[in-house]
Amino acid sequence: MAKHIITIGREFGSGGREIGKTLAKELGVECYDSRLIEMAAEYGEIDISIFRNVEEKKANSLLYTIHHDLANEKTGYGLPLNDMLFNLQSEVIRQLAERESCILIGRCADYILAGRKYVHSVFIHADMEARIKRIMQKYEISQKEAVSMIKKKDKARSSYYNFFTNRRWGEKESYDLTINSNVLGIDQSIQVLKTLFSLA
Amino acid sequence: MAKHIITIGREFGSGGREIGKTLAKELGVECYDSRLIEMAAEYGEIDISIFRNVEEKKANSLLYTIHHDLANEKTGYGLPLNDMLFNLQSEVIRQLAERESCILIGRCADYILAGRKYVHSVFIHADMEARIKRIMQKYEISQKEAVSMIKKKDKARSSYYNFFTNRRWGEKESYDLTINSNVLGIDQSIQVLKTLFSLA
Repeated sequence: MAKHIITIGREFGSGGREIGKTLAKELGVECYDSRLIEMAAEYGEIDISIFRNVEEKKANSLLYTIHHDLANEKTGYGLPLNDMLFNLQSEVIRQLAERESCILIGRCADYILAGRKYVHSVFIHADMEARIKRIMQKYEISQKEAVSMIKKKDKARSSYYNFFTNRRWGEKESYDLTINSNVLGIDQSIQVLKTLFSLA
Repeated sequence: MAKHIITIGREFGSGGREIGKTLAKELGVECYDSRLIEMAAEYGEIDISIFRNVEEKKANSLLYTIHHDLANEKTGYGLPLNDMLFNLQSEVIRQLAERESCILIGRCADYILAGRKYVHSVFIHADMEARIKRIMQKYEISQKEAVSMIKKKDKARSSYYNFFTNRRWGEKESYDLTINSNVLGIDQSIQVLKTLFSLA
C-alpha cells in the first residue's frame, strides 16, 4: 500500500493537535506528537527525564545551558542536549516515514521529511480570540493566563523551529497548506486534510 | 441545490488563475476574473474603457488621480474612479453570490463575501523561482523582465487589497486556506479545492 504522511505545525490553541488526532483516528493511522521524545530517548538509550524540559524550547535559553551541562555529564555524547534531542527525534521521524503512513505533529517534521512526494505539510492557525477561548476552557484558567500561556508556547515553538530549520515558523511559504481552523472549524479542516493525505 | 463558492487570491505567476479556471470547469460552474470589470461597467452603465486602466491598481497612484478627474468629468458620479469600480464590482460579486455557485478570482471577493458559510477563501502562492519560470514561458520574456513583471503585478494587487479591505494581502490570517502551488502542483491543488468547495 502507498504511504501517506501529513506533518502538522500549529499555533497553540488552534486545535491543531485535536485535528491531527481525529484525522489519524478516522484514517486508521498513528498520530505521533509528544511521544516522539520518548521514542527518541529510547532510540538514543538516554534517560527520558533529562529530555522532558528541553522539548521544543529555544536552544539558547538558560534552561538549555543548564541541561547542556547535565547532558554532557550524564550521556557523554558531547552534544548540546537540544541538538541531541533534535537529532534523535529526526532519526525516529525518518524511520517512521520509511515504515508507515501517519500524522506527525510538531518537531520540525515538515523540514526533516522535505522532498518526499508522499509527505504533505500543514500549518494550522486561528484568530487570537478563538485561541484564548479554547485555552481558557481547556485548562480552566483566566483570560490573562491564557494569553500568557499562548504567547509563551508560540514563542517556544517558533524559536525551536527557526533554530533547527532554514524556514520560518508559521509563514505560509514554509508549508504546502495553511488552514484557519476558527473559520473552517475542526470537522471541515479534517475533511480538507483527508484529501491532502490521499494525494500521491 | 446548495450554493458553494471559492474565492481565489493569488501571487502573480503562481498559477492561481489556471487553478481557478480548471477547478470551475471540472465542477461545472463559472469562473469570474477580469470580466468582473465589464460586468461592473455594465451594471453601473459606465463606459468600460475608463475602467480598464485602474483595475487592481493602487488608489493613490498618479494614474488614479488622472482617472479620478476623468471619471468625475465623464460620469458625474463624484466618486474617485477606483472607489466606483470597487463599489460596482462588490455589488456584482454580492449578486453573483446570491445567485449561483462559482469561483471568483481576485477583486477582494473574500472580503466582500466574508461571513457567508458557503464561501471559502483561498490564497495561492509559489516560490519566486517557480513563478519566474512560469512567467518567462507564458509571456516569452527574459528572466529580468519576468522578475520586474511579478514585482509590479504583486505590488498592484497587494496595494489594491490592502486599501479596500481591513486585511493584509497574502497573509495566511486573511484566508481560510493558503496553498503552495509549486509544491502541491496544479492538479493536487485542484483536488484540495474540490473538497473545500463541497464543504457546507
